[in-house]
Amino acid sequence: MYSEIISKFFKEHNITVGDIVKVDAKGITEEGELMPSTEANDSGIIIVKLKSGYNIGINFKEAKISRVSRGKPYGEFPRADLKYKEGLPKIKLVYTGGTIGSKVDYKTGGVYMLTKPEELLYEIPELSDIAHIRACDFLHVASEDMSTDDWGKIAKEVGDSLNDGFRGAIVTMGTDTMHYTVSALSFMLEGLNSPVVVTGAQRSPDRGSSDAFLNLICSAHIAAKSNIAEVGICMHYSSNDDKCAFIRGTRARKMHTSRRDAFRAVNSRPIAFVDSKGEIAYNSDYKKLSKNFRSKVKIVTGFEKKVALIKAYPNSDPEIIDFYVGKGCRGLIIEGTGLGHTPALTENKNASWLSYIKNAIDNGVVVGMTSQCLYGRVNGMVYRTLRLLSGLGVIYCEDMLPEVAYIKLGWLLGNYRKEKAAKLLAENLAGEISTRSEYDEFLA
Amino acid sequence: MYSEIISKFFKEHNITVGDIVKVDAKGITEEGELMPSTEANDSGIIIVKLKSGYNIGINFKEAKISRVSRGKPYGEFPRADLKYKEGLPKIKLVYTGGTIGSKVDYKTGGVYMLTKPEELLYEIPELSDIAHIRACDFLHVASEDMSTDDWGKIAKEVGDSLNDGFRGAIVTMGTDTMHYTVSALSFMLEGLNSPVVVTGAQRSPDRGSSDAFLNLICSAHIAAKSNIAEVGICMHYSSNDDKCAFIRGTRARKMHTSRRDAFRAVNSRPIAFVDSKGEIAYNSDYKKLSKNFRSKVKIVTGFEKKVALIKAYPNSDPEIIDFYVGKGCRGLIIEGTGLGHTPALTENKNASWLSYIKNAIDNGVVVGMTSQCLYGRVNGMVYRTLRLLSGLGVIYCEDMLPEVAYIKLGWLLGNYRKEKAAKLLAENLAGEISTRSEYDEFLA
Repeated sequence: MYSEIISKFFKEHNITVGDIVKVDAKGITEEGELMPSTEANDSGIIIVKLKSGYNIGINFKEAKISRVSRGKPYGEFPRADLKYKEGLPKIKLVYTGGTIGSKVDYKTGGVYMLTKPEELLYEIPELSDIAHIRACDFLHVASEDMSTDDWGKIAKEVGDSLNDGFRGAIVTMGTDTMHYTVSALSFMLEGLNSPVVVTGAQRSPDRGSSDAFLNLICSAHIAAKSNIAEVGICMHYSSNDDKCAFIRGTRARKMHTSRRDAFRAVNSRPIAFVDSKGEIAYNSDYKKLSKNFRSKVKIVTGFEKKVALIKAYPNSDPEIIDFYVGKGCRGLIIEGTGLGHTPALTENKNASWLSYIKNAIDNGVVVGMTSQCLYGRVNGMVYRTLRLLSGLGVIYCEDMLPEVAYIKLGWLLGNYRKEKAAKLLAENLAGEISTRSEYDEFLA
Repeated sequence: MYSEIISKFFKEHNITVGDIVKVDAKGITEEGELMPSTEANDSGIIIVKLKSGYNIGINFKEAKISRVSRGKPYGEFPRADLKYKEGLPKIKLVYTGGTIGSKVDYKTGGVYMLTKPEELLYEIPELSDIAHIRACDFLHVASEDMSTDDWGKIAKEVGDSLNDGFRGAIVTMGTDTMHYTVSALSFMLEGLNSPVVVTGAQRSPDRGSSDAFLNLICSAHIAAKSNIAEVGICMHYSSNDDKCAFIRGTRARKMHTSRRDAFRAVNSRPIAFVDSKGEIAYNSDYKKLSKNFRSKVKIVTGFEKKVALIKAYPNSDPEIIDFYVGKGCRGLIIEGTGLGHTPALTENKNASWLSYIKNAIDNGVVVGMTSQCLYGRVNGMVYRTLRLLSGLGVIYCEDMLPEVAYIKLGWLLGNYRKEKAAKLLAENLAGEISTRSEYDEFLA
């Protein structure tokens, strides 16, 4: 509730929560929906939800506030007790933090973490009709702070749950590095025979525009009903609140900072679309689960941390390779230009990328090449200069995303001898490489 | 012409150039169009154009060749003398190499450079009906080898030509780093009052599927007829050979390794579409040239080479920042995750990116933040941890592409004092930042 002074002001000016208001403060003018205050808040901060979906907090004393238009009355989110219904498939929910597990801090307009995963499930009573969801309070980290060790822990928790009889698993996390995590899980869970769905939200669940609800409901449908035996991301497919896409973990990439449909399938198509009613439309080939043979998942969590992802661009300094070699780096993925170039590849230039790359390979480093174009396929054979690189032993990573190649190389070097790791880098293990490119999916 | 032995084999097996053939060599089977040989070629190499558009060379002695289907007869490209017609606008063509200036080497199946820009103009007689094009044989480099000095030289050549009375300019170059070059030209040509069109090709002009012809014809139309006073890229808009898009230089990005429509406008819409007949459809706001006041272009070519672009990702090593600081780096652009994060931003972690970034700023380095999502806008105010970064003085670069922010910072530090450069980094100079995001253009 807003403080007495603020409430009085609102009453006098015929402003109610939900109205569109204009706020001038310190020379900055913002327009948006007046949000309710929290009970604890008597600090004199007005909360306004901007069109962008973000909430801001403005000091009432410094602000000039006026009503622009009348809004819809603002309601509380529906709440329900966690109920478990008979006969529904058992799904494990591994909670790790992120925006889907956070609320707006009405004092600052910023975002902070929820304390318990149940807070999330309480908000979505529909989930109890889809599956028997057991939440596991696992981690409380922002996605940018998730470590390679965390990936292994999540893989183990998911794998153990599946081996204990859960039908599927949902992992909730922040979206910023979600495609790195989901890629790691794709390699770490070998011989998977269940759907593993990673999801999150671009806007926190206490916002009217949050994508958390549809994302979780659709994820539950995939985990409870689909016959997909793969790890993938289930998030909004468009900016409408109508359906989600389930994208293979090794093909997903966050392609927008803030849109709800930020995740895209790169060089592949989404495996399936799913709506809130549980209608699943399969859209491409995928690994199907076998009902007759419920094999155990093999959990392979080794990860070599001494790997790096390097971007090559005009005027970029090849000494960066020496920097990593000097630190004992065992694997390098280069995000080259176009078909897999680095600057100054021609033989007659001094201090070219070529000589530094040669030095790295001579020092036993596995070097893989990808493209910063993201879409398409690298090719070490088209241009003369490229043949110099592939001739040195640089491994061209086909149509694999740079981020996925980086995760894969760390995982390979964490679990295999170097020669074997180098050999497997350009071979398809978890849908990360395809022999034929699906052209029609480019930026669609 | 193919050698006598090969020609005899073709005759006996009723195979002619243009047919679709299957070739088995060393256990690898490829299918594609049989290409003509060059006169110089009597080395026993068969040239086959694959469906991907790439030519491969196969040793006849090692290959088993059979015809799959009858093809269309293969013709030479039309040739014409360079003619100049009266009354057409004068356009400068600055030739710098790249795939548009290259031919297939039939001995290896690789690609090498043309020796003269006229070779390119000879291939496209239509150009002489559009404009009086004066080619300037400027550089012969692959796009990945183009240097920051080259950008300045190109800017000077273009600027001088426009100041000497040319109506517009076309720059031909390789596509891999084209968006870096065009971005540099956008900042280096101040007060532009003419169209400056950068173009190239994804497939070399001696291939039937080359995009060089449409790209050059459309570029000539933009340079000769449009009222656009901006620098931009003119390349295929779709994989059809029907029209090109003219994309603002600070908004274009190569988003596919090999498609002809590889360039996309990010966080903006193409300025215009143009077809081979010269129909120009304007599609968004742009700077219009003034016919009454033909001001001189100011050519500002300073560029600080001690700048770098750093990608932040899970498990990435923040010591990379010290590496650059130690080398005297004056500007750093971070390609962060999501809204502009780096790993381990929280205050209580040791050796976090935060402390290294603070050290860089304390050492006088200008640090800018962008997003590896590419689409969308960074925001230093939404999450608590981000406020720590923006509090240190990290400059959030709005909806600017990471590559553009890198070029811009190098250019700013090459021409302005540090404080002024830092201030201008987040201000719009050449269409690289917009106050409102054009959401509907996301990946469309």
